Amino acid sequence: MKKALGIGLAGFGTVGSGVWETLEKNSELIQARTGVQVSINRIAVRDLTKAREGAAAELFTTDWQEVVNDDSVQMVVELIGGTTTAFDIVSSALKLGKPVVTGNKALLAERGAELFELSRQHNAPILFEAAIAGAIPIVKAIKDSFAGNRIESMAGIINGTSNYILERMTDAGLDYKVALAEAQELGYAEADPTLDVNGWDAAHKAILLTSLAHGFVIDPADVYVDGIEQVRGTDIAFAKNLGYVVKLLCVMHTRPDGAVELRTQASFISQKHILSSVNGVFNAVAVTGDAAGESLFYGRGAGKGPTASSVVGDIIELAQAMGQGSQPAGFLPYKPDGGLLPIEETETPYYVRFDVSDRPGVVADIAQVLAQHGIGISGTHSPVNSDDPDAEFVDMVFMLHTCPWGKLQATLSEVEKLDCINSAPVVFRIEAL
Amino acid sequence: MKKALGIGLAGFGTVGSGVWETLEKNSELIQARTGVQVSINRIAVRDLTKAREGAAAELFTTDWQEVVNDDSVQMVVELIGGTTTAFDIVSSALKLGKPVVTGNKALLAERGAELFELSRQHNAPILFEAAIAGAIPIVKAIKDSFAGNRIESMAGIINGTSNYILERMTDAGLDYKVALAEAQELGYAEADPTLDVNGWDAAHKAILLTSLAHGFVIDPADVYVDGIEQVRGTDIAFAKNLGYVVKLLCVMHTRPDGAVELRTQASFISQKHILSSVNGVFNAVAVTGDAAGESLFYGRGAGKGPTASSVVGDIIELAQAMGQGSQPAGFLPYKPDGGLLPIEETETPYYVRFDVSDRPGVVADIAQVLAQHGIGISGTHSPVNSDDPDAEFVDMVFMLHTCPWGKLQATLSEVEKLDCINSAPVVFRIEAL
Ligand SMILES: NC(=O)c1ccc[n+]([C@@H]2O[C@H](COP(=O)([O-])OP(=O)(O)OC[C@H]3O[C@@H](n4cnc5c(N)ncnc54)[C@H](OP(=O)(O)O)[C@@H]3O)[C@@H](O)[C@H]2O)c1
Ligand SMILES: NC(=O)c1ccc[n+]([C@@H]2O[C@H](COP(=O)([O-])OP(=O)(O)OC[C@H]3O[C@@H](n4cnc5c(N)ncnc54)[C@H](OP(=O)(O)O)[C@@H]3O)[C@@H](O)[C@H]2O)c1
Repeated sequence: MKKALGIGLAGFGTVGSGVWETLEKNSELIQARTGVQVSINRIAVRDLTKAREGAAAELFTTDWQEVVNDDSVQMVVELIGGTTTAFDIVSSALKLGKPVVTGNKALLAERGAELFELSRQHNAPILFEAAIAGAIPIVKAIKDSFAGNRIESMAGIINGTSNYILERMTDAGLDYKVALAEAQELGYAEADPTLDVNGWDAAHKAILLTSLAHGFVIDPADVYVDGIEQVRGTDIAFAKNLGYVVKLLCVMHTRPDGAVELRTQASFISQKHILSSVNGVFNAVAVTGDAAGESLFYGRGAGKGPTASSVVGDIIELAQAMGQGSQPAGFLPYKPDGGLLPIEETETPYYVRFDVSDRPGVVADIAQVLAQHGIGISGTHSPVNSDDPDAEFVDMVFMLHTCPWGKLQATLSEVEKLDCINSAPVVFRIEAL
Repeated sequence: MKKALGIGLAGFGTVGSGVWETLEKNSELIQARTGVQVSINRIAVRDLTKAREGAAAELFTTDWQEVVNDDSVQMVVELIGGTTTAFDIVSSALKLGKPVVTGNKALLAERGAELFELSRQHNAPILFEAAIAGAIPIVKAIKDSFAGNRIESMAGIINGTSNYILERMTDAGLDYKVALAEAQELGYAEADPTLDVNGWDAAHKAILLTSLAHGFVIDPADVYVDGIEQVRGTDIAFAKNLGYVVKLLCVMHTRPDGAVELRTQASFISQKHILSSVNGVFNAVAVTGDAAGESLFYGRGAGKGPTASSVVGDIIELAQAMGQGSQPAGFLPYKPDGGLLPIEETETPYYVRFDVSDRPGVVADIAQVLAQHGIGISGTHSPVNSDDPDAEFVDMVFMLHTCPWGKLQATLSEVEKLDCINSAPVVFRIEAL
């Protein structure tokens, strides 16, 4: 008896067409389960001449305003990506009081402050399950299921491309560049993989998760982000020998005083931790709540079906509430300000690789600078896989005790001045989890 | 500005008191995050003389009707357990149009048909995240997040007690009875652990998950359930040697024709599958949806905090919707009938342990009966850990190729007639996952 709720879809690429297909294929099931009947009434794309599977030609337009303003459109689903036109689409929808579903982590991480403010003013929720970790319902978990918990920590592997590259470097011994090329060939990495390998795609998601957990908007400029570009086979081999694996890891910790640590870095994690076995294009997020204890969410982090699954879940949540003349509670920031702990103050043990001239006294020289700054050494290692023991330039690895990041950086910039050091040292955190 | 929503709480034991504490401890956070303010206005218990932490004495009563009927009670949280008084409490609340939150899997699995019908008639949802897998938000995942998916399969380790016992048998070589006694000492198993070890606690949860996925009420009498009581050290040792671990596993499969397989049995699963590393009192559920693909949910399956986390999540969901004069969509069956595949027709490979008199020809005799029925043998093994090679009675293990359960049972009852067989054979499925 309920009439169909009208959707305006912006974008009919990988995810947009997946949403269309999922709604088509399972429409009866969705209606039986949830009472919800939705129909996609308008679709914005860039190029009208492209062949489109499924949807009727007359639904398409290149003018997104037509979609957003259409009277038959009660909610807007933004799946074009980017932070410019996408911003205009989402903000226009919100100003009309039309709820929004989006999978656009860059948009929300970069311009969330403005958009969540519009959401509040116009009482129109923004749902974004698909923006983080594909099919994994991590947004609902943090926002709704764990709403009674103080979130003590999160650790996530939430970029499938970099995870695939690191896996291939680890298991097949591929070079970074070869592994990246393979990922691109298989369609796991974009033609421009910058945001995947420099850590920012993962960081955008981690920023959103942290906002969900702590209620404040985070300025990306305040977040320390480092990708996988500096990972070499030698690091992977060292990690393996020492009982670790290298993962691009997003880490959030809530300190007892309420300060929040947040970082995205290629890191060493123990081979025994369950996150170490998250391979390929899978994502996983470990969450600890004060009541719930430890939990882990694992699943497909991207791709047509998995991402569409989350978009459709959000559409159904909206439609169910709207069918009752109500609305689901979208996320709204409830704290004015950050409180992110400066990265300089965050503490872990470290793995540091120095590119040194192999002459007697190198270890002593480095060790002395570290000692002067009170940084403890738990071990020093020469390359595991060196074929030529007499090579003039070698890597030298120092495992360092826990100390603040700022102190480490200051110390390393002094070490760098030693004439035996050939280039900036490479640092990985050892994350305890 | 919103006024507090009144909760009537039935039960102030492990979970009930945990809910009180969580709401107390994190009330400001909950209000900031969700706009929700709730207060527990009445509490039913059995014994008024027990010392209670936290809640004021005047809130307590031994008469649950006072709680349910109280005008200041807008939703009822049932945490007393059992299927009799709990049924009366829940049904009375629903008849008054008061939504219900419960952690009672036995109640919903045994008497869900009546209760969901009342829920429909009186337009009052039943929320039961806490009934399945403690803190893990698996109900919301299946019901809401994956609402756009056809659920193709689920596999769950959802009874912490039996999982702990099997882990101790595996890792410490304990006997079943010793491991059970240890679990009881540590408070992981109830004084009466029957439902934990005979598989029914897990089966109740699997029944509910299957109803969520497929929309029909399941008669527990139609479900094949077998626990861990017949697991011996010798089975664990065989499993280990063959690359498996023994787990109490709930399995749901949707066949292409729509028929649904559902079973709870101690089973062999590959040591390589992620479920094999779920140990101790943790729970995990693997879910495959046609759009989402494979995913896994892992966390604490029971206990005060984890269970309270889920109850509070449900309370908040209700309160948020009720604050808008609306209601969350509770689960309602939408298909009239079962469609569970008879267990006789379900097919897997098997591990079968025979208690035999050790005389020449035993293997040949058994193999012949199996051959007559067309059941293939992939291997036969004698005990891994036999201390006394000349013992008169020994275990003999057959690994069998995939065949229907019904055919296997018929065949085994013939094998049993052989005079070399001393007791009914013990069967474990080998689940592919
Ligand atoms: N792909 C994934 O696995 C995945 C996973 C999670 C989240 N996401 C997010 O989902 C969003 C979409 O990703 P995608 O992979 O589906 O992208 P895509 O395949 O590149 O598709 C983009 C779509 O948007 C349309 N479009 C682009 N600019 C437009 C404009 N100015 N006006 C109208 N239409 C425009 C394109 O039109 P044409 O078809 O005419 O080119 C295309 O249909 C992104 O925010 C992405 O981060 C994607
Ligand atoms: N414990 C867990 O980890 C867990 C996990 C998931 C789900 N659950 C489910 O949660 C429910 C409660 O479990 P629990 O461990 O909290 O049980 P519990 O510790 O035994 O507490 C039961 C509570 O109910 C009260 N009660 C029992 N019968 C009553 C009656 N007829 N009238 C009024 N009050 C009555 C008891 O009163 P007194 O205090 O006066 O004895 C007690 O406060 C069960 O359905 C269980 O399956 C438990």
